[in-house]
Amino acid sequence: MKKKFSVKKPQFVVDENRVRTNIKKIGLKVELNQAIFRPHFKTHQSIQVGRWFRNLGIDKITVSSVSMATFFVSDGWKDITIAFPFNIVEIDELNELTRQAKINLVVVSETTFQFLGKNLHRPVDFFIKIYAGYRRASLPPDSDEIEKILSLEKQSNLLNFRGFMIHSGNNYHIGNKVEIANNQIGVTKIIRKLKSKHLADYPQLIVSVGDTPSISLLDNFEEIDEFRPGNFVYYDLMQYHIGSCSLNEIAVAVAAPIVHKHAETKELVVYAGAVHLSKESDKGFYGMLAHFSENGSWEPDENGLVIELSQEHAIITVSDSVFERYNIGDTIGILPVHSCLTADIFRGKEIIIGNNK
Amino acid sequence: MKKKFSVKKPQFVVDENRVRTNIKKIGLKVELNQAIFRPHFKTHQSIQVGRWFRNLGIDKITVSSVSMATFFVSDGWKDITIAFPFNIVEIDELNELTRQAKINLVVVSETTFQFLGKNLHRPVDFFIKIYAGYRRASLPPDSDEIEKILSLEKQSNLLNFRGFMIHSGNNYHIGNKVEIANNQIGVTKIIRKLKSKHLADYPQLIVSVGDTPSISLLDNFEEIDEFRPGNFVYYDLMQYHIGSCSLNEIAVAVAAPIVHKHAETKELVVYAGAVHLSKESDKGFYGMLAHFSENGSWEPDENGLVIELSQEHAIITVSDSVFERYNIGDTIGILPVHSCLTADIFRGKEIIIGNNK
Repeated sequence: MKKKFSVKKPQFVVDENRVRTNIKKIGLKVELNQAIFRPHFKTHQSIQVGRWFRNLGIDKITVSSVSMATFFVSDGWKDITIAFPFNIVEIDELNELTRQAKINLVVVSETTFQFLGKNLHRPVDFFIKIYAGYRRASLPPDSDEIEKILSLEKQSNLLNFRGFMIHSGNNYHIGNKVEIANNQIGVTKIIRKLKSKHLADYPQLIVSVGDTPSISLLDNFEEIDEFRPGNFVYYDLMQYHIGSCSLNEIAVAVAAPIVHKHAETKELVVYAGAVHLSKESDKGFYGMLAHFSENGSWEPDENGLVIELSQEHAIITVSDSVFERYNIGDTIGILPVHSCLTADIFRGKEIIIGNNK
Repeated sequence: MKKKFSVKKPQFVVDENRVRTNIKKIGLKVELNQAIFRPHFKTHQSIQVGRWFRNLGIDKITVSSVSMATFFVSDGWKDITIAFPFNIVEIDELNELTRQAKINLVVVSETTFQFLGKNLHRPVDFFIKIYAGYRRASLPPDSDEIEKILSLEKQSNLLNFRGFMIHSGNNYHIGNKVEIANNQIGVTKIIRKLKSKHLADYPQLIVSVGDTPSISLLDNFEEIDEFRPGNFVYYDLMQYHIGSCSLNEIAVAVAAPIVHKHAETKELVVYAGAVHLSKESDKGFYGMLAHFSENGSWEPDENGLVIELSQEHAIITVSDSVFERYNIGDTIGILPVHSCLTADIFRGKEIIIGNNK
């Protein structure tokens, strides 16, 4: 009998084949749309996974903090967009980064622009982030702040306007292809307006968008010059429910030892809790069961759902036959609801399986 | 002008005075109930905070994993209950621990008992965890499994029955003093039944309970021999809404730099997201604003609420005057919804303030 796949403590398992397939698939779609592929590395935050991208020819990346930029610069990445309103108190760290790599920033206020103008040591490109259905830290397309920033830009030798950035974060809440396609029509209109207004002054400007649902579900895009999705590298249950991926495209699972079985209710109690999976829930659940084979690959099981989550425990309701199949001490898998948060928790400690390139 | 309290990145700030006061207050209540105080260290997971307990005379602790036990044994703790159904695949780690400290386990199945009987190197005490309104990994008070475990115990030289453990986890969902008091009446009845049934065979048995709401809200307990609450050391917004603490007893805050201001909506965008605060929400919010003074102490502000949380951003809605008071680059505080999860994320990286003993 082969040795079972077994862990002593919760572990984060990454299926290399699935990751490479996900990268290739989305990369091809970006190529067919004749755009730049600048994947967001906040999801995986992994040197190793970053190298798989690099092996496929990708040399431009996105991150969401100065720390994350510093981390990837340390592995030789040379063209990095920090897709986060620049945090001015990290100016020293930024000046250090620009010595080593081409850094592109997001600027959404005059205040930040002026601070950078005074304190930057070397030139950077910057994007203005535009609201297109999801605000967070962006400006409406007709905001006065855009004009103010661009008029300052004209006098600056250090800050070069690269274009507009849009994050359709609302796609994560929409959750179906038809509405995501409709949303995209609205985004395209906004981009057209922005370009018609600013292309004359900035003929080199590009528009960069980044969200996993639209690039996963739609095929043809107009007016988009750069894509920076992140989650697609791993996918997760939230993306599965939106329709962005199949269950078999989810490339990560948390491995967890079974510590108790509730016979009356056919529930497995496992060592893996909110400090491992994150407290993100979707449709009332915190994860889906997966069955590991000997080599660490897994099969999702839609009949097994994480119904309760404490700091270190999860309770999984399973079918009768699954309940009988497992013993205390065995390892099961849990597909995460939101892989970005789960991956962050296990940062630097991934177990990689399935590397038969 | 004094220098403002300022951070470059999200940080976890612990107010030593508040922590010491929380420990003393709950410790006194346990003492008045003539019970053992065995605080749960899963909330803080901090060597330093553990030492504050030790300075106050506490020498028995609770943890929720073998790893956490190992961590605190490394700082000299000698009497540790692992309040988690024992994870049999960590038997080697357990045998190492029992060389260095007195370890008490939780056993809730014959399977685990038998495994331990065969594989333990040294004796341990164990508790049986009983369901009293909150199941997770516990047995109903009339479960056959209890009898099976106790009959095995009679033949074992290595496993000594120490008593019953109850976690009234349902108190976290009840959320008011009257109902928590009612729940406690039910728990007392269950304990009486257990004792009347088992005290003859086990005259030394104790009953250990552990939850923060009941020990915070109620004064007098019957039949309880040991208390092992954890969250009270820091408290949080969830406990505040239950009524376990005042806002000024919350002893931790996440410090975050402001990266953007939305003038139209009076919202602050800060660098601190789900990977810092955790995705736990309470009443639809992810945290409450706090204002830091120069020395890092803070004042809670009930008019400031975290209304949206991404991986690295939070959006805080604030009053007009607060909006005007802050600039991009300034540091604000966020009181967490669930301090156990937030503390776990910042493990080993606390900033401690206010140590004027």
